[in-house]
Amino acid sequence: MTVSVPQAWYNVLADLPFPLPSDIPPAAGPAATGRAPQVPKSLVRHSESRRREVPIADEIGTAYESWRPTLLRRASRLEAALGTSARIYFKYEGGNISGSHKLNSAIAQAYYYSRAGVDRLVTGTGAGQWGTAMAAAAQMFGMDARVFMVALSFQQKPYRRTLMELFGAAVSPSPSTDTDTGRTFLATNPDGRGNLALAIAESLDDVARHPGSAFCIGSGENYSLLHQTVIGLEAREQLAEMGEHPDEIYASLGAGSNFGGISLPFIGAALRREAPAVRCVAVEPASCPKLTRGTYAYDYTDYSGTTPLEKMYTLGSRFVTPSIHAGGLRYHATSKLVSALYHHKLVEAEAYSQTDVFASGILFCRTEGILPAPESAHAIHATIAAARRATAEGTTPCLLVCVSGHGHFDLAAYADAAAGLLTDEIPTDEDYRTGLSGLPTFTPAG
Amino acid sequence: MTVSVPQAWYNVLADLPFPLPSDIPPAAGPAATGRAPQVPKSLVRHSESRRREVPIADEIGTAYESWRPTLLRRASRLEAALGTSARIYFKYEGGNISGSHKLNSAIAQAYYYSRAGVDRLVTGTGAGQWGTAMAAAAQMFGMDARVFMVALSFQQKPYRRTLMELFGAAVSPSPSTDTDTGRTFLATNPDGRGNLALAIAESLDDVARHPGSAFCIGSGENYSLLHQTVIGLEAREQLAEMGEHPDEIYASLGAGSNFGGISLPFIGAALRREAPAVRCVAVEPASCPKLTRGTYAYDYTDYSGTTPLEKMYTLGSRFVTPSIHAGGLRYHATSKLVSALYHHKLVEAEAYSQTDVFASGILFCRTEGILPAPESAHAIHATIAAARRATAEGTTPCLLVCVSGHGHFDLAAYADAAAGLLTDEIPTDEDYRTGLSGLPTFTPAG
Repeated sequence: MTVSVPQAWYNVLADLPFPLPSDIPPAAGPAATGRAPQVPKSLVRHSESRRREVPIADEIGTAYESWRPTLLRRASRLEAALGTSARIYFKYEGGNISGSHKLNSAIAQAYYYSRAGVDRLVTGTGAGQWGTAMAAAAQMFGMDARVFMVALSFQQKPYRRTLMELFGAAVSPSPSTDTDTGRTFLATNPDGRGNLALAIAESLDDVARHPGSAFCIGSGENYSLLHQTVIGLEAREQLAEMGEHPDEIYASLGAGSNFGGISLPFIGAALRREAPAVRCVAVEPASCPKLTRGTYAYDYTDYSGTTPLEKMYTLGSRFVTPSIHAGGLRYHATSKLVSALYHHKLVEAEAYSQTDVFASGILFCRTEGILPAPESAHAIHATIAAARRATAEGTTPCLLVCVSGHGHFDLAAYADAAAGLLTDEIPTDEDYRTGLSGLPTFTPAG
Repeated sequence: MTVSVPQAWYNVLADLPFPLPSDIPPAAGPAATGRAPQVPKSLVRHSESRRREVPIADEIGTAYESWRPTLLRRASRLEAALGTSARIYFKYEGGNISGSHKLNSAIAQAYYYSRAGVDRLVTGTGAGQWGTAMAAAAQMFGMDARVFMVALSFQQKPYRRTLMELFGAAVSPSPSTDTDTGRTFLATNPDGRGNLALAIAESLDDVARHPGSAFCIGSGENYSLLHQTVIGLEAREQLAEMGEHPDEIYASLGAGSNFGGISLPFIGAALRREAPAVRCVAVEPASCPKLTRGTYAYDYTDYSGTTPLEKMYTLGSRFVTPSIHAGGLRYHATSKLVSALYHHKLVEAEAYSQTDVFASGILFCRTEGILPAPESAHAIHATIAAARRATAEGTTPCLLVCVSGHGHFDLAAYADAAAGLLTDEIPTDEDYRTGLSGLPTFTPAG
């Protein structure tokens, strides 16, 4: 194996044939008091630069080398089980302490926040993968960590909390009674389940009260998608070494960093006409289908409405996702970058329900010996569907799927799935209306 | 990285300067009815051959390639945290679906049992790592699987059971009400905790009642140590590539396959005078110290006394280990091969209590980003102790430790450890007497 860890991240903004819609600072409210996230200049540059290759700092590259390059392998036993005419390759990002791709950005962010003088990082986490990654990265650079974890995941996955605490992080369920935002939410939603947007709002509250703290976020921002491009850059090289180029790429879609991470380098190569076009498919849960059912509009990225407005495919920051097990896909919107790619038809989207998704996750585990996170099982399910289509149509595509994390902390869900106890909660029209009621009512000039 | 998966296992019997004591069939009892394990001829050859290199069959090698060669890395951040003058390298065997080294032998055994016409494998498991490995391997070769899991682990690690069931295995806690042996044990020990020897006895019971079934075992037999030598063979090559040779090797000791797997290739090279001698240290729990507190004697490998007698360091098959979390190290004896090496002073042993061991496991997780299984944490603790000694003595040894598995299913224990809730249960003289009361009373002629 001669593929090595990339020396630079790939910045798709250098190759996009359209500009991204600008963010809009909230007109009034708490943001004016400094509660909007303060992002280090290096990360702002990572989000705004037009430079195609953004060098990876030595400290980050050294940390990457402790688990990268990650495995890329042909799923031969899965292919055999399906009897498919397709060739299926998977890239596996679950082999690090955070159990997912999230560590790729956590290490970069912790490095830059640390250099900016921050000594305490605060964040919200859904399934707990980002929280674990952030806790590990914060400790690596000598910082404290504070995590607000969506209450449902907090209850479903107690060992995620333990793992974060082993890295010295303080962890609360969100909604919590630790912040004004949390208390206000609980007062009006006593049995409220919360969501990632609320956890983010609580984090911003917490930061405002603790000098030296900063809020960081696992996905959605351009810079986190940039950091994740190590996945796709490695995959391109690894496939090329085997004489392959993918026809289709499947990755699950939460806020966008996993999907962006594997697909952007391929999309860029096609835009530069250095490689054939690839059909890139974002796979979302039918219970939180922001691309396939959402609106392309300016929205807040958190619940309290203190963050800048970004133009995104969104279900509204007040959308409360059904309690599916793929906590990482419960975010109400997706990144402005993936949203723009979807709007301009450079990427596609499919939505699946969790009972089907878990069945495919179990098949993948049995055949390939890797238990996928429920998030990753979405992408696997879409890949299996594509392989079956290919067989039916007599085509022989090369399929690439990103298995973004392991499911070792999701075995309670897998046990339910194996016992036929999972259900599919699909949002109602009323749920969608409630979500959109949180959209800002003015029309921005931009 | 140019190191590839070995093409052959290393057989230390070719280089040992002494013969291993022969096994003795039980003089009477159930063994005469065919309840002793029926082992395929290929595995018997693996145990008895004097050939130094035993070729790895293509089907096994192909399976190995899905996760081997495994990671060998310098623990630079651990070294820095310790401020040690020692160089610490670790070999990591937790990156496969079983979460431990056990898959190395499970795949080989499943392959040979399948070729021998067996369609159902039955086994006992302590911590569940072997059971998971066996379930995965059985499914890979189209066989059913039946697992008796020591009740304490069954309760402590429900997700281990789920994972085995995802591979189609049927899993019971041992003692169970499914077998005569289990029922008899429960009748006299209604709150009996059982141990691996009892789980093995129940497995043998079950096999006797199910034609087409065979009993298989995760560790202890010469052939399982042989299969595990891929660990040490890879490690030798990987270290040599970095210009290193270990002065000391640390591995946890249960029945012996992990310790044997990493150390035998180094011991063999030293016996052949092809490489300097290495201090190989078997690390055992203070609650189950078979080498440091046991007796070198002929003993049964199971509880019911139906298996051939083997000469081993043993605490007696009726020894009931305190309920420590490192289930894989609870076996009452260790393999005859490791026992002979210890008797002839080719290897050493150290015993540590679990509170110290978990603290070292947490330090390793924080610094190296891998959460070790409690078993592996024993070896890590001994390595840290060695590194501290080196610093105190001003020496600069090269230390190699085998991190045999991950601790993702042991986070309840880690949470207790972090909260200061773990205790050390050290056996009493009475416990040791009870254990030895199970030793066969006759003196074999051999």
